[in-house]
Amino acid sequence: MKIDILSLFPDMFSGPLHQSIVGKAIDDKLLDIQVTNFRDYATNKHRNVDDYPYGGGAGMLLQAQPIFDALAAVEHANQDLPKGRVIILDPGGKPFDQKMAESFAHEAHLTFICGHYEGYDERIKTLATDEVSLGDYVLTGGELAAMVMIDATVRLLPGVLGNEASAPGDSFSTGLLEYPQYSRPADFRGMKVPEVLLNGNHQLIAQWRRKEALKRTYLKRPDLLKKIKLEKSDWELLADIKAELAEKRVTDA
Amino acid sequence: MKIDILSLFPDMFSGPLHQSIVGKAIDDKLLDIQVTNFRDYATNKHRNVDDYPYGGGAGMLLQAQPIFDALAAVEHANQDLPKGRVIILDPGGKPFDQKMAESFAHEAHLTFICGHYEGYDERIKTLATDEVSLGDYVLTGGELAAMVMIDATVRLLPGVLGNEASAPGDSFSTGLLEYPQYSRPADFRGMKVPEVLLNGNHQLIAQWRRKEALKRTYLKRPDLLKKIKLEKSDWELLADIKAELAEKRVTDA
Repeated sequence: MKIDILSLFPDMFSGPLHQSIVGKAIDDKLLDIQVTNFRDYATNKHRNVDDYPYGGGAGMLLQAQPIFDALAAVEHANQDLPKGRVIILDPGGKPFDQKMAESFAHEAHLTFICGHYEGYDERIKTLATDEVSLGDYVLTGGELAAMVMIDATVRLLPGVLGNEASAPGDSFSTGLLEYPQYSRPADFRGMKVPEVLLNGNHQLIAQWRRKEALKRTYLKRPDLLKKIKLEKSDWELLADIKAELAEKRVTDA
Repeated sequence: MKIDILSLFPDMFSGPLHQSIVGKAIDDKLLDIQVTNFRDYATNKHRNVDDYPYGGGAGMLLQAQPIFDALAAVEHANQDLPKGRVIILDPGGKPFDQKMAESFAHEAHLTFICGHYEGYDERIKTLATDEVSLGDYVLTGGELAAMVMIDATVRLLPGVLGNEASAPGDSFSTGLLEYPQYSRPADFRGMKVPEVLLNGNHQLIAQWRRKEALKRTYLKRPDLLKKIKLEKSDWELLADIKAELAEKRVTDA
């Protein structure tokens, strides 16, 4: 996969992109990342990239010209690749989620346009195939958002995760929150690992995990339960969970 | 504000935390960030921090001991500060949003625990005041999630944003997506700035902006409209918007 990033702060990417899984994917030649400072494409004398908004208001906007011309240069340099996606990072975009990461992972070329300051001149958005938001919060720039999306995408590329089994078992790929997990020791400062996980009965363990995943999702993210198709056995477990919680409330009262 | 980060990849923070607004806040002594590698607290001979999950399954889990002891050391070093929040980054946590950033910005001390590998030994979660997820996607580690939350939080600290007026006008602080903005030139390669923004009538500009913000939110994120209290004038604008869109559909057909 080839990833291009247009940013005014290329140095922000130096640490995160060369550590952990993304750095390993680059070392393994599964990924090539190029960061372009679009200030280099500004045609005005002082290489300014921002200006006041028409109609007044606080803050400065990124102007169209440097980003248009930087993207044209990136597209020219990658003309041998199939046409990919141009992702503009904007709090008004479609919220990023695991499905979007999976769709990005199928592309040969991704270009991220990272905003800064108060925002973009609206005309810049005509360049994008996708306007994407990382979540309902405001960041000082698109750089960290791009890094998060790159991390979530790159770990899905074939060969990137050491243990191929890791990716599909994760939270969100089943549509449920993950069940609780425990590692050694079995008793850590008085806190004990649930018995069922120690007895080696794989059927009981699988059932316990499914029930705990359902319970956690029911309690913490009921919105996720509406988005997935549950099996008949899941509905039975959910009924048990609700009964147990009701009993607990009575006992606690 | 003092921020502590517990992470196995301290170098990931070198770029992002020393650039842009967060780096400026550090230079201005408004913020002090300390990154602790909790591997340094592992008591076993090989300084391992992970082990297999009880009950089987793919991937490795972070063990309790190194994180418990690293956090104890951080809390000891910060005992003069009011007790703050200990935030564990986990896809099963409460989704991070602007309200949470605002509440974090009121604390004197934040500690972020960054996971890695398949996840945490469940007992580690007893250390946290907050279990927080960046969004419904899976990352290879909590580092980027911590950086995003730190960026969103630090920009809200008094004195951090150069232009104090910038923060409150942002997306999400009004509860609506931001209206389109334009900067010079008025005509960029044939794409023109809307007339209303050029005529200097501030009342018309304010009304156009409110309507465009409502329209964009209605079209792209109708879920946000349910979360805020609209004025009577907003309802009138929304009725106009719906009528215009209906007319457009008829014309297009």
